[in-house]
Amino acid sequence: MMEQSRPLDALNKARNKKVIVELKGGKTYVGNLNAFDIHINVVLDNAEEHEAGALKRKLGTVFLRGDTIILISPAA
Amino acid sequence: MMEQSRPLDALNKARNKKVIVELKGGKTYVGNLNAFDIHINVVLDNAEEHEAGALKRKLGTVFLRGDTIILISPAA
Amino acid sequence: MMEQSRPLDALNKARNKKVIVELKGGKTYVGNLNAFDIHINVVLDNAEEHEAGALKRKLGTVFLRGDTIILISPAA
Amino acid sequence: MMEQSRPLDALNKARNKKVIVELKGGKTYVGNLNAFDIHINVVLDNAEEHEAGALKRKLGTVFLRGDTIILISPAA
Amino acid sequence: MMEQSRPLDALNKARNKKVIVELKGGKTYVGNLNAFDIHINVVLDNAEEHEAGALKRKLGTVFLRGDTIILISPAA
Amino acid sequence: MMEQSRPLDALNKARNKKVIVELKGGKTYVGNLNAFDIHINVVLDNAEEHEAGALKRKLGTVFLRGDTIILISPAA
Amino acid sequence: MMEQSRPLDALNKARNKKVIVELKGGKTYVGNLNAFDIHINVVLDNAEEHEAGALKRKLGTVFLRGDTIILISPAA
Repeated sequence: MMEQSRPLDALNKARNKKVIVELKGGKTYVGNLNAFDIHINVVLDNAEEHEAGALKRKLGTVFLRGDTIILISPAA
Repeated sequence: MMEQSRPLDALNKARNKKVIVELKGGKTYVGNLNAFDIHINVVLDNAEEHEAGALKRKLGTVFLRGDTIILISPAA
Repeated sequence: MMEQSRPLDALNKARNKKVIVELKGGKTYVGNLNAFDIHINVVLDNAEEHEAGALKRKLGTVFLRGDTIILISPAA
Repeated sequence: MMEQSRPLDALNKARNKKVIVELKGGKTYVGNLNAFDIHINVVLDNAEEHEAGALKRKLGTVFLRGDTIILISPAA
Repeated sequence: MMEQSRPLDALNKARNKKVIVELKGGKTYVGNLNAFDIHINVVLDNAEEHEAGALKRKLGTVFLRGDTIILISPAA
Repeated sequence: MMEQSRPLDALNKARNKKVIVELKGGKTYVGNLNAFDIHINVVLDNAEEHEAGALKRKLGTVFLRGDTIILISPAA
Repeated sequence: MMEQSRPLDALNKARNKKVIVELKGGKTYVGNLNAFDIHINVVLDNAEEHEAGALKRKLGTVFLRGDTIILISPAA
């Protein structure tokens, strides 16, 4: 029997890869997924903040608190 | 005596099938249910984001944080 | 001494019966109560979504996340 | 020394009596307090929904999720 | 060494005395503090509801759910 | 090796001193920090409520529920 | 095998260094990261409050409650 995958497996596969993180307030961060935990606190490296599709600023490393996150997706 | 079903049984039956996931902010995601956990964190494959009934973008794999989710339903 | 009833007893009595579920955002779902848990996550079968009193769409089976639910009541 | 009363004692005294339950969204329910738990999930029998002081509808039995409740008071 | 006081000590001192309780939605309740617990669920006796500084109604006993409370202060 | 400081150490140092407490709704309280706990429930003595920079009222002792608090800072 | 980094490691590396902390309500604090805990409660020293890009006031030491925080990033 194959073991069933869990949501954090998807984050684990995305580790050190470029991801998009969208927050409740409408902001989006794109960067390399450095770390995450069970609260879905996330650390991105080389992070860029985007708003309404446009680059707003470059942030380097950024810690995003899990409870403000809506979605995380590998960048295409 | 028949054992009574629990809410996560319904998600389990939908595993690897196409589901609709609606979020608090009004966005809808349609994709194959790859994984979920007790917080209702969800991972969809081949996910599409819909808003106001129209396809907004294709996301591939997407992790959706449970506390933003309103409903999950097998796609008709 | 009679044992005092608990809130989940009322949901248990409504199992497999038609209930109305109202969400924080104003949407209402009517369907057969298939399952619920202590978080008040709920699964309805043959669910219909109503808004402002009108049928909006038929959903079949729907999983509703507990923390968006305001009330559950047996359909008259 | 007299034992000090706890908040749930007040709900216990109101059991099977008519209470007013007010929710965060502005709705008010009046009915007989059938059950409650430590999350302040509440079940009312013979419940009526009031809004802006007027009777909106009769609901029979209604389960109200604790985290939407602001206050519970014995009906005068 | 003197033991340091904890927030609930202040509520304990106010027991059976007149307090003001302010809620997130802007409503204020004035009454005798009958009971409280660690969730800051509170029961007031002889409670009055005030809004915008004016008495809105008399409620007798009222149970106020902790998570809607902003502040509790002994009435001057 | 020096032990690393924790956030509650900063509150402990401010005990019995004048602090500013800002709430989510925009209100500010200034008073002597009498007590706090791990939920960041706070009790101030000789508290004043300020709004938009102006003194609104004097409250004496006030209990502020932790989950409405944004920041606590020693008064300059 | 290299051990995988966790989100709090990034905060640990930023200890005693200048960081930007952004809150849900739109306020930003810049200061030296003195302390943090698993709730992401944070203490900054030499903190400045910024709003809409402009310095609003200097606060010295400030305790920021974790659940209002969106992001923490080392200042460039």
